[in-house]
Amino acid sequence: MESGWIVSDKNDMLKGRCVKLRSKGLLELKQSKFQKIEVYDTVHFGKVLLIDDIIMLSEADEFAYHEMIVHVPLSVHPEPERVLIVGGGDGGAAREVVKHSDVKEVHVCEIDEEVVEVCRRHLPALACGFDDDRVEVFYEDAALFIKEKKGLYDVIIVDSTDPIGPGESLFREDFYRDMHAALREDGVVVTQSESMFDYRDLISSLFRFNKGIYSKVYYYLTLVPTYPSGTIGFSFCSKKYDPLSDLKDKKIPGLMYYTSEIHRASFVLPGFMGSVISGD
Amino acid sequence: MESGWIVSDKNDMLKGRCVKLRSKGLLELKQSKFQKIEVYDTVHFGKVLLIDDIIMLSEADEFAYHEMIVHVPLSVHPEPERVLIVGGGDGGAAREVVKHSDVKEVHVCEIDEEVVEVCRRHLPALACGFDDDRVEVFYEDAALFIKEKKGLYDVIIVDSTDPIGPGESLFREDFYRDMHAALREDGVVVTQSESMFDYRDLISSLFRFNKGIYSKVYYYLTLVPTYPSGTIGFSFCSKKYDPLSDLKDKKIPGLMYYTSEIHRASFVLPGFMGSVISGD
Repeated sequence: MESGWIVSDKNDMLKGRCVKLRSKGLLELKQSKFQKIEVYDTVHFGKVLLIDDIIMLSEADEFAYHEMIVHVPLSVHPEPERVLIVGGGDGGAAREVVKHSDVKEVHVCEIDEEVVEVCRRHLPALACGFDDDRVEVFYEDAALFIKEKKGLYDVIIVDSTDPIGPGESLFREDFYRDMHAALREDGVVVTQSESMFDYRDLISSLFRFNKGIYSKVYYYLTLVPTYPSGTIGFSFCSKKYDPLSDLKDKKIPGLMYYTSEIHRASFVLPGFMGSVISGD
Repeated sequence: MESGWIVSDKNDMLKGRCVKLRSKGLLELKQSKFQKIEVYDTVHFGKVLLIDDIIMLSEADEFAYHEMIVHVPLSVHPEPERVLIVGGGDGGAAREVVKHSDVKEVHVCEIDEEVVEVCRRHLPALACGFDDDRVEVFYEDAALFIKEKKGLYDVIIVDSTDPIGPGESLFREDFYRDMHAALREDGVVVTQSESMFDYRDLISSLFRFNKGIYSKVYYYLTLVPTYPSGTIGFSFCSKKYDPLSDLKDKKIPGLMYYTSEIHRASFVLPGFMGSVISGD
């Protein structure tokens, strides 16, 4: 890697774009059974986690991602007692889920134990999410884990990597069908669904099959400056609740990004997205 | 510049972040009296204009910037007959302004004639904005030009570079006071006001003084993936009209980003922005 910079340049993923961050040094480099895991310290973005050369998070802006992947579904479901997080090995999603006092049990299904170990060591502000007594971590392949669960969860949050490497199976129709079966009858799923600027074909395909599986399917946005296009979106798939008309005014402590107004605004998409999510 | 890549790495501006785009070749490099002007062709983003090593626009995503800097104010003002564009030497803002049939006269005040020449040559999809009969271009320093205008404009759009180099004077309190005097009694100003992730101090300062000048001052967002943080914002400063309650349902042809719903949603800001734009 170029001296003094973190370089994120998987070109197949980033559409001929490369993001570089000024580095203060490598803190850890580990090749796990599944992927390459790196943590750097940076001049302006705090510590940064890379997996297979892609920036997963920076301490400076992870709040915008984790608050939006968690508080949107948990503010729509009236009583999210049992929550499953798929992926989420950094702990940031769990940290946000346990801010909800109505949550009684959180399962985290992370395929790579070494991600959790690395994050516990270097990113305690995220990994603290694992310390809550309600949280239990399973080191399993979520695509298999989910098949054994029937009618169990109120909310499933898929905090995955991109659709290459170990995360690939989490973008398949089968997985969305298995999640549907793993949910209670009024369950909600939210999945990391990539940037609307870079992944229109992927998002179109998710919407085509999810409209055949779930009764309500929406796409919503957050802004993460250290991601290649600066924005990332989520699929909101629900058996019953509407993300706007069923929004509850829950009191959630310690937020920097999420508000009820941002919740509503994040579902409003630019004109060009109309055809992308039409399901046709 | 590194072979095969466009590198945007003015580190003082980009907070230790560097954006690189895969290049297909340099089309033009010109040092004008004011600044360095470059046009590249790229693999994924069409042609790209750089000024002083900063990406100004790419053909792939300029619509998200130009539609939002123009159609927000022009959809709020009920009769925007006379419009001033400050900067805007690429023609993209003028192209959007002339989509409004109620506009009778458009002045473009661009300091650097060579920007317009270069864009006419390489970026005709933007520079076509200058071809409309209602558009007149003045090659002058806008900070001086504006001082001679009193009660003349319905809408002023400041489509400027960043607050370094020739654009610096356009971020000063004096300039906002002079624009106030150049507007009619119900005039609206919209100004390029940088990223909320990278420029909180600048935005705070703009809001502190503008709340003493204009009766309504708001900040709103658009998403531009080739900009360093992926988002850029605008100040909406108005003598009379409110950007939300005075929004008109105008029919505007050929849009890819702007809708009335996006207009409303773009004024909803993440929680952390509350203190930034409070004016305190």
